[in-house]
Amino acid sequence: MPASFGDGLDVIYLVKSTKDQIEAVAHDIAVEQTVEVTAPLYSDPFISTNVVGRVVDISQVDEDLFQVTISYAGAVIGLEITQLISVIFGNVSLKKGIRVKEILPSATLADRFAGPKFGIAGLRSHIGVPDRPLVIGAIKPLGRTVDELAQFACGLAGGGLDLIKDDHGITDQAFAPYRERVAACAKAVAQTNSETGFNTLYCPTVTGPADQMVDRAQFAKDVGAGGVLISPLVAGWDFMRAISKQTGLPIIAHPALAGAYLAPDHGISHGALFGTLMRITGADLVVFPGFGGRFPLTREHCREINVALKCKLHQIRDAFPVPAGGLTLERVGEIRSVFGNDVAFLIGSAVYERSPDLAANAAYFRGLAAAWE
Amino acid sequence: MPASFGDGLDVIYLVKSTKDQIEAVAHDIAVEQTVEVTAPLYSDPFISTNVVGRVVDISQVDEDLFQVTISYAGAVIGLEITQLISVIFGNVSLKKGIRVKEILPSATLADRFAGPKFGIAGLRSHIGVPDRPLVIGAIKPLGRTVDELAQFACGLAGGGLDLIKDDHGITDQAFAPYRERVAACAKAVAQTNSETGFNTLYCPTVTGPADQMVDRAQFAKDVGAGGVLISPLVAGWDFMRAISKQTGLPIIAHPALAGAYLAPDHGISHGALFGTLMRITGADLVVFPGFGGRFPLTREHCREINVALKCKLHQIRDAFPVPAGGLTLERVGEIRSVFGNDVAFLIGSAVYERSPDLAANAAYFRGLAAAWE
Repeated sequence: MPASFGDGLDVIYLVKSTKDQIEAVAHDIAVEQTVEVTAPLYSDPFISTNVVGRVVDISQVDEDLFQVTISYAGAVIGLEITQLISVIFGNVSLKKGIRVKEILPSATLADRFAGPKFGIAGLRSHIGVPDRPLVIGAIKPLGRTVDELAQFACGLAGGGLDLIKDDHGITDQAFAPYRERVAACAKAVAQTNSETGFNTLYCPTVTGPADQMVDRAQFAKDVGAGGVLISPLVAGWDFMRAISKQTGLPIIAHPALAGAYLAPDHGISHGALFGTLMRITGADLVVFPGFGGRFPLTREHCREINVALKCKLHQIRDAFPVPAGGLTLERVGEIRSVFGNDVAFLIGSAVYERSPDLAANAAYFRGLAAAWE
Repeated sequence: MPASFGDGLDVIYLVKSTKDQIEAVAHDIAVEQTVEVTAPLYSDPFISTNVVGRVVDISQVDEDLFQVTISYAGAVIGLEITQLISVIFGNVSLKKGIRVKEILPSATLADRFAGPKFGIAGLRSHIGVPDRPLVIGAIKPLGRTVDELAQFACGLAGGGLDLIKDDHGITDQAFAPYRERVAACAKAVAQTNSETGFNTLYCPTVTGPADQMVDRAQFAKDVGAGGVLISPLVAGWDFMRAISKQTGLPIIAHPALAGAYLAPDHGISHGALFGTLMRITGADLVVFPGFGGRFPLTREHCREINVALKCKLHQIRDAFPVPAGGLTLERVGEIRSVFGNDVAFLIGSAVYERSPDLAANAAYFRGLAAAWE
């Protein structure tokens, strides 16, 4: 690969095409994702050599299915997450039969993006949990008042969960306005922590207006929240970086809208979307539907995500997989077989339903995770 | 429909299911998109009555395919575009066989979101083009220097195009840093306008870091840009509103990443995505792949988008369809038959390729559009 492209990234696409068309199709992707012009307009030697994406490999994987590796120059990406996303899948999302299989940033490119501020080891050290799975609870549902939500926060923290997040839909509704709600829940968790000696982090949903999100996250930090929950596909891909930079808080990424990208023969693979992209863009914990829950992800998808979140990616830290979506703690063994100990369980309804004593239920789930040590 | 829900919106989904399952599936969508808990946890009368989405209609459209209308309360949406998007397709994007067919906001809900600041009539009046199709040129490709790009801007403006946009991938690369580039192109267009008497608006790409986008747009306005280009699915859905509010400039929406949502049996329909959502979120002009170009949209998809951009949507203004992606001006008649006169042609490579005289080429295309008057 020429030196000028060694500072960028390679993207491996799975492309539906016939054998005699594939070279042209691959070349079209490289052009579409960079210069977006017809051939005469990129014939300029500087542009054709340094700017247009390069097809560096084509191999057949099945009848009418090819693996195409395209190399993009670092200079094309610049310093921006948004441009990174556009180059990987912007315009070609509008074509058919093109799936991002793997995203392979160079060390130079990876170095430009901070990635997770904490990563698995950093978050363990921050929370003080050296090696068992983490346990996350959710304050829910939408429609509860500030007092009710704060009471739930108190109960979940009382049982010593490691993190407590809002449901991603609890934002700034009149039921429970943002500032009031976040201040009350953060206070409830801090008070409970001071009584129990646990170190539960409260992570409110900060997805909201583009011109207010960073301020909301700063407000959350100011009133004592220990982390934030962001839906990056709804909010905008770059908000995890911006909020991590502003607040220094751990970031939990929520998968709202992500399913649009998961078509079997188009879109972005589970590993590239929930793994590589979430790491590059700064999630410390990545929520996705666990296998066997109420969403159609398979055990194999989960393995792929787990690997992509934890594999060596230059200096970019790893991140916790957070399988969710109707999981119950009876399935811990099965879940552990895929994710190992470096996993965070997100317990939704189940922690409310076990008994009327929320703190006791939370303690039970924490105990199940602790038993893994 | 109960009064408490009359202030929200209805969403019509196409859902793959069997006849005996469809009621349960429809109910699951309504729960998933609002309270995200199991039944015992939303039995509270306030929540079950006022918060949980309501299945208001189920009708069979084909074997194993149903049309399901779900009504969401305005209080659940609050005042936020991000929450609106989440409620429409956040979690259920992660399921399968669920497609947003139509988005039907109530007048009350529509009133909360500004929508396009100009709309078709407003933009015509702003530019001074009463009734012919608009003509948009693109400064391209990525890799050109600031001087080269400014020279192209000068040429395109010299021929009197109505709007000139950057390619969406030209952001802040070292080739042409944002501020330098935007200032130079805006100056080139302003000077050319003062010589020709045309009123060409220069619309730079402002998609970029989450914590800098609004400032970039304000900078563009300060140096004389007449509009901005945003990729809302990359930048974040709410940036069009935020930037319109901050700058008052017309907004062109670019479709990067949108293709992920267009799967035939999942995702969001062409009309709902490029029409209704783009209007609610504030685009004055919406770029999408035209039929017969290099992307796989059909004439029927284009008709659907055209209708969704122009139909009555309470007080939300209409917006210009901008079919693009390899269009040539030989096809104006065919394009007119779908979009009528209220259309903006985005001419990419073709305006550069007709002859070496860019201003003459631009004037030729403007003339073709003018001949429609």
